[in-house]
Amino acid sequence: MTKLLPTSFSKTIQTKLVLPPDTNHLGTIFGGTVLAYIDEIAAITAMRHSGTAVVTASIDTVNFLSSARVGDILILEGVVISTGTTSMEVYVKVECQHLETGERTTTTTAILTMVAVNEEGRPIPVCGIIPETEEEKSLYESAQERKKRRLKIRNFTTESN
Amino acid sequence: MTKLLPTSFSKTIQTKLVLPPDTNHLGTIFGGTVLAYIDEIAAITAMRHSGTAVVTASIDTVNFLSSARVGDILILEGVVISTGTTSMEVYVKVECQHLETGERTTTTTAILTMVAVNEEGRPIPVCGIIPETEEEKSLYESAQERKKRRLKIRNFTTESN
Amino acid sequence: MTKLLPTSFSKTIQTKLVLPPDTNHLGTIFGGTVLAYIDEIAAITAMRHSGTAVVTASIDTVNFLSSARVGDILILEGVVISTGTTSMEVYVKVECQHLETGERTTTTTAILTMVAVNEEGRPIPVCGIIPETEEEKSLYESAQERKKRRLKIRNFTTESN
Amino acid sequence: MTKLLPTSFSKTIQTKLVLPPDTNHLGTIFGGTVLAYIDEIAAITAMRHSGTAVVTASIDTVNFLSSARVGDILILEGVVISTGTTSMEVYVKVECQHLETGERTTTTTAILTMVAVNEEGRPIPVCGIIPETEEEKSLYESAQERKKRRLKIRNFTTESN
Amino acid sequence: MTKLLPTSFSKTIQTKLVLPPDTNHLGTIFGGTVLAYIDEIAAITAMRHSGTAVVTASIDTVNFLSSARVGDILILEGVVISTGTTSMEVYVKVECQHLETGERTTTTTAILTMVAVNEEGRPIPVCGIIPETEEEKSLYESAQERKKRRLKIRNFTTESN
Amino acid sequence: MTKLLPTSFSKTIQTKLVLPPDTNHLGTIFGGTVLAYIDEIAAITAMRHSGTAVVTASIDTVNFLSSARVGDILILEGVVISTGTTSMEVYVKVECQHLETGERTTTTTAILTMVAVNEEGRPIPVCGIIPETEEEKSLYESAQERKKRRLKIRNFTTESN
Ligand SMILES: CC(C)(COP(=O)(O)OP(=O)(O)OC[C@H]1O[C@@H](n2cnc3c(N)ncnc32)[C@H](O)[C@@H]1OP(=O)(O)O)[C@@H](O)C(=O)NCCC(=O)NCCS
Ligand SMILES: CC(C)(COP(=O)(O)OP(=O)(O)OC[C@H]1O[C@@H](n2cnc3c(N)ncnc32)[C@H](O)[C@@H]1OP(=O)(O)O)[C@@H](O)C(=O)NCCC(=O)NCCS
Ligand SMILES: CC(C)(COP(=O)(O)OP(=O)(O)OC[C@H]1O[C@@H](n2cnc3c(N)ncnc32)[C@H](O)[C@@H]1OP(=O)(O)O)[C@@H](O)C(=O)NCCC(=O)NCCS
Ligand SMILES: CC(C)(COP(=O)(O)OP(=O)(O)OC[C@H]1O[C@@H](n2cnc3c(N)ncnc32)[C@H](O)[C@@H]1OP(=O)(O)O)[C@@H](O)C(=O)NCCC(=O)NCCS
Repeated sequence: MTKLLPTSFSKTIQTKLVLPPDTNHLGTIFGGTVLAYIDEIAAITAMRHSGTAVVTASIDTVNFLSSARVGDILILEGVVISTGTTSMEVYVKVECQHLETGERTTTTTAILTMVAVNEEGRPIPVCGIIPETEEEKSLYESAQERKKRRLKIRNFTTESN
Repeated sequence: MTKLLPTSFSKTIQTKLVLPPDTNHLGTIFGGTVLAYIDEIAAITAMRHSGTAVVTASIDTVNFLSSARVGDILILEGVVISTGTTSMEVYVKVECQHLETGERTTTTTAILTMVAVNEEGRPIPVCGIIPETEEEKSLYESAQERKKRRLKIRNFTTESN
Repeated sequence: MTKLLPTSFSKTIQTKLVLPPDTNHLGTIFGGTVLAYIDEIAAITAMRHSGTAVVTASIDTVNFLSSARVGDILILEGVVISTGTTSMEVYVKVECQHLETGERTTTTTAILTMVAVNEEGRPIPVCGIIPETEEEKSLYESAQERKKRRLKIRNFTTESN
Repeated sequence: MTKLLPTSFSKTIQTKLVLPPDTNHLGTIFGGTVLAYIDEIAAITAMRHSGTAVVTASIDTVNFLSSARVGDILILEGVVISTGTTSMEVYVKVECQHLETGERTTTTTAILTMVAVNEEGRPIPVCGIIPETEEEKSLYESAQERKKRRLKIRNFTTESN
Repeated sequence: MTKLLPTSFSKTIQTKLVLPPDTNHLGTIFGGTVLAYIDEIAAITAMRHSGTAVVTASIDTVNFLSSARVGDILILEGVVISTGTTSMEVYVKVECQHLETGERTTTTTAILTMVAVNEEGRPIPVCGIIPETEEEKSLYESAQERKKRRLKIRNFTTESN
Repeated sequence: MTKLLPTSFSKTIQTKLVLPPDTNHLGTIFGGTVLAYIDEIAAITAMRHSGTAVVTASIDTVNFLSSARVGDILILEGVVISTGTTSMEVYVKVECQHLETGERTTTTTAILTMVAVNEEGRPIPVCGIIPETEEEKSLYESAQERKKRRLKIRNFTTESN
């Protein structure tokens, strides 16, 4: 039987200051910068869970609900919410904290599929997980549903291209 | 009536060399680097169509079909495939060219929604588009369908969080 | 009387993957990269405590006890451990986690003095703090001692230059 | 007997323009950027003295006496001021030149201990030095005193952590 | 006989958004940033023509006719215009597009000589080219003249240094 | 009469360590990286001479005589060698020092024309110079010749484009 690791084992936190090079000439952060941060924390989270190198297989639809500006603080949290044989689903929450008010708003959430790989880039097995919080349990349970949806979108994408 | 611009007006091409800082310690490009490139070309494409600053409202599910390594060349193409009042759908195709063989494989495709904004970050109207190639026409026609799917995923995301 | 904030209010965590550009040609992280990370997390911690911009006034002696290499993960934690009228002492702990073994070693610890400033760069008052853990309480109590030591070193530095 | 090299053999100069990405949203340079520059010049100085790779073992207390802003010029000078068996003390002076007035102020000074290492990261012997200017001679003579002070701080640090 | 490739085989396009870190404190792009972009596109163009790694042997005189500012778009095009045994002449055109007006002005043009090299950095033979457009044909025909001029400048440079 | 400044007033030195991100996958530095360094030091040199912001008007033909690799040290020196009403000719010498042998080879030399500009980017007058070393005097005297040559190349460039 596969070894199981609690989600807290690999839960990862990032805190970033939004700086001028991350933003356009209006001082608003680029979506691409946030996407790169999301991928980075998902990779670290999955690397800590698997103890191996990982590659990104997919990122589910991301909606940017609110913006972040120079001088704001971004807080990202990554947690493994389900596992397959060699893949891990990582849930990432991105919040933006406005410095002067201290107020926090959710900028976006994302779900990525990361795959553990060996030195040649071939997929290798990973441990399972034990979800701990209520949110983690609910995301764990809906994993099959997301897998189906992902497959459908993939077919859709392939067709429409 | 809204002015219409042909897709060729804003079609944008990028060619990138994959360098060590873009890759993990196995020499494979980070998903986040590709996502940042995709957002960058989508932003430039939408800026050229609208003649204004833009923000990223969403990026549809991205599947990474093949990897790229240090020394490979990435070729990205961005084209506006449909427009709303203030939003533009941008279709991005990412190909990887292996240097020695010259062989090109599709790394991924993505569809982003970019919104034209004024200096205060408020949405402002954009011109419409005239699709030119067969692929563009087919993507143009399926825009409504994608909008519906996007809404459904959004609800799903909101619920599951 | 000054408002007091608990240390947990501004405690900040960073998790970084050590990448090739952060390292010399032997794959060992630069001291300067770690120092820049230490300053970044101290700045974010102090900004969250004060709700203002901050500048670095000084960094106490830093000893690098162990190294970090490409592919390792750095975990940094910043906490405000004492306050003056406009200055904040921030304690930063840097740990290195080796991916395959999961083993964590302390790379270094550092104490920085950050000063809250207004738009013109002039010092402005900050809230006090309520230490929470045993370590925080002990660091809080030894603040006066460190202040004296810092003054002595400063005189020493000025003389020897 | 160890070969001796004059300090001028490895003396190193850097001149940097302060650019937006090096600064916070008020246009003031980050302490961490200056620390990274200090470490970079100390490493190059020690590499030129030893002819080997080096790692940073420690950096003595750094006080930031004045700030630098976007458009200012930073001038750094590094010189080896004493050597042990495998370690080198490097003295770094950082000056800020204001463009329009040409006026130069000292931003900070720092003393770092760099250790010469082989391909496996193990300490290896270095040449001695011959101090040349009066300042270098005085810093050379006070090396023992600094070593003692450093040890005391180290014990202090270890205890207080 | 050497194989010939049409210029279209390796013609390369880049589209860049001018961002704050690329510019001085007046918001004008650095000549060095443009030169780095020119070298990057010339390298990719030559790599695609030769299917090997390349090094830059020389860059002919570059005049910057007009500037680019934060928020502008740079469009670069690289094309191999003549070949020797191991060297390739690459012609690069840089245009700047102003976002709001859509107006395009030529910022500069440049001609670089890139040399195909093997893993040890030794020159290796490349295919010839078939110029396609009128401009390419005219540049192809004047290659000998440029080679002579380059030699003369080289001698001049050597003498005056 | 224009004020004259000695060349030593603005002479500028840079020392750089060649790092992985500056190099291609064979570990050889990019020509574009060296060109960006050359422009940076020329800008700082001209800024210190003029006390104003500057833009790059042109860079004369650059031949790369030898390469630099990861772990090598680049030493750049910039000096104003002649002045017009608003323009300054800056001579830049780039040497590469190999770490283990200490041996220095000239990588390249370059001459750039920098123009002093006000906040609106309009040319403004600069001080003259007094050359000090023999090399500086000889370069100072040949300035007129280079100006003529530059004009000829410019016409040539304009015609051939
Ligand atoms: C995108 C944004 C400007 C929309 O603002 P809003 O107040 O919702 O404005 P509206 O409701 O008028 O919507 C404007 C357009 O955006 C579209 N839109 C909004 N959210 C969207 C989403 N998640 N996906 C796709 N389209 C979206 C709307 O459909 C509308 O399109 P239309 O004018 O063509 O019909 C706002 O949500 C925002 O600023 N988000 C953050 C963007 C950002 O900074 N991204 C970078 C990284 S955080
Ligand atoms: C520095 C380092 C190589 C010393 O290794 P070590 O096993 O302690 O070796 P030694 O005890 O033989 O010490 C070697 C020299 O370093 C000196 N040294 C060790 N730690 C030191 C410190 N914190 N401050 C000053 N000097 C120190 C010793 O005095 C000795 O000097 P000497 O040979 O001139 O007498 C090791 O601690 C290390 O790798 N640290 C991490 C360095 C690093 O990667 N820094 C970058 C950021 S983390
Ligand atoms: C370019 C380089 C490989 C040429 O090596 P070399 O020993 O002179 O080799 P060769 O004499 O066989 O010349 C090879 C080709 O380069 C051309 N070449 C050499 N120097 C040149 C120059 N300065 N300008 C234009 N072409 C040049 C030769 O004409 C020859 O072309 P051909 O084969 O088409 O006839 C070598 O000078 C070098 O490595 N320079 C450094 C390149 C570099 O690293 N640049 C990046 C920044 S420093
Ligand atoms: C350089 C620039 C300011 C000159 O503006 P201009 O309107 O031509 O001004 P002027 O005719 O008064 O020329 C000013 C000086 O520049 C010199 N100059 C102009 N173009 C030049 C060139 N290509 N090469 C050398 N010198 C040049 C003139 O000879 C004159 O020198 P002088 O005052 O010492 O006699 C303008 O061409 C420009 O802004 N170019 C873009 C610069 C830039 O942004 N570079 C970065 C990358 S694109």
